[in-house]
Amino acid sequence: MNPKYPSLLLENAVNEFAKLPGIGRKTALRLILHLLRQDNSTVDGFAQALTELKHTVKYCKSCHNICDNDICPICLDKSRDSSTICVVENIKEVMAVENTMQFKGLYHVLGGIISPIDGIGPADLEINSLIERVADGSIKEIILALSTTMEGDTTNFYIYKKLAPYDVKVSMIARGISIGDEIEYADEITLGRSILNRTLFNESYRM
Amino acid sequence: MNPKYPSLLLENAVNEFAKLPGIGRKTALRLILHLLRQDNSTVDGFAQALTELKHTVKYCKSCHNICDNDICPICLDKSRDSSTICVVENIKEVMAVENTMQFKGLYHVLGGIISPIDGIGPADLEINSLIERVADGSIKEIILALSTTMEGDTTNFYIYKKLAPYDVKVSMIARGISIGDEIEYADEITLGRSILNRTLFNESYRM
Repeated sequence: MNPKYPSLLLENAVNEFAKLPGIGRKTALRLILHLLRQDNSTVDGFAQALTELKHTVKYCKSCHNICDNDICPICLDKSRDSSTICVVENIKEVMAVENTMQFKGLYHVLGGIISPIDGIGPADLEINSLIERVADGSIKEIILALSTTMEGDTTNFYIYKKLAPYDVKVSMIARGISIGDEIEYADEITLGRSILNRTLFNESYRM
Repeated sequence: MNPKYPSLLLENAVNEFAKLPGIGRKTALRLILHLLRQDNSTVDGFAQALTELKHTVKYCKSCHNICDNDICPICLDKSRDSSTICVVENIKEVMAVENTMQFKGLYHVLGGIISPIDGIGPADLEINSLIERVADGSIKEIILALSTTMEGDTTNFYIYKKLAPYDVKVSMIARGISIGDEIEYADEITLGRSILNRTLFNESYRM
């Protein structure tokens, strides 16, 4: 049963907030009461930032990352290696890989992964545009950096098959024991994979 | 270090979202990416509900609850007992007490509790307006329903002192072992209080 709100406007705002993932009606009410204690300009700034983003957001015509112009700063950066493309699910993964400062190539944001249960097929993702980029001939390596879920594996395999006709190296990010993790508590599949894909000792510390 | 966002508009929206209590920058980004996947009308509705609430919200002139008009529906309800006032900290507690359906009197929303650490004194709260309501003479009982924290106790005591000159009964909600709680694990103060304030067996089940 929904609690009875003393104000329709309040109920409306709670309903809107509670549509967000992971935000229930109690949290929504708490956040709104917090906003009500702020001054008008703060709340207006909050609302405006959202509508402005939604109405003017653009996606890079090359890698489909979110950006303010037609081509994102990463694709425009001439100092980056434009022959290597890291394929990721979403903009969050672009930011995560960028934060490592270990990758100097370009990205390709799929916008999701193949998931029949959610009704997401290859046509809903930016897979064809990836093939087009490869077909241009200047790409030497595609690094797949998708989640290790069934959906991620399916998407990896689909892309790998699609790229087979082209002269391009397809690699995957290494799977293994996280740094700081106890080997004792690692799951068998990860530990097994980390033994199969072991690296030479003197190559492990090149950074 | 803040991660580098590929878009200024996105960074702006993340900053605004991350100002909310309990929402960090990662959660903010997750919520915003969710909103970006919705259509324009959903995001506009979300933003509009907030600004509309903030700009047109009213507080009941009598009990200071949030409402859409000058007087809230609870204060207007002639079937309620207008001689009993339940004093609460915030609108969330009004909703919680209303949900019990055990209280048929009116409310008085203080808008906070006395907390010197946060710089909140009696003058920042709706305490004077409560005294005025009592001074009118038609109130028979004031029920204090504030948190059992040091701040709540301070506020309780302050209100009790302020009400001393008036012919009004001041009561507090019962403190005791929660229904469903194990007595073995109850803290000593609550258990001690529940023994001191024990109720007659045949009176405990009147509902």
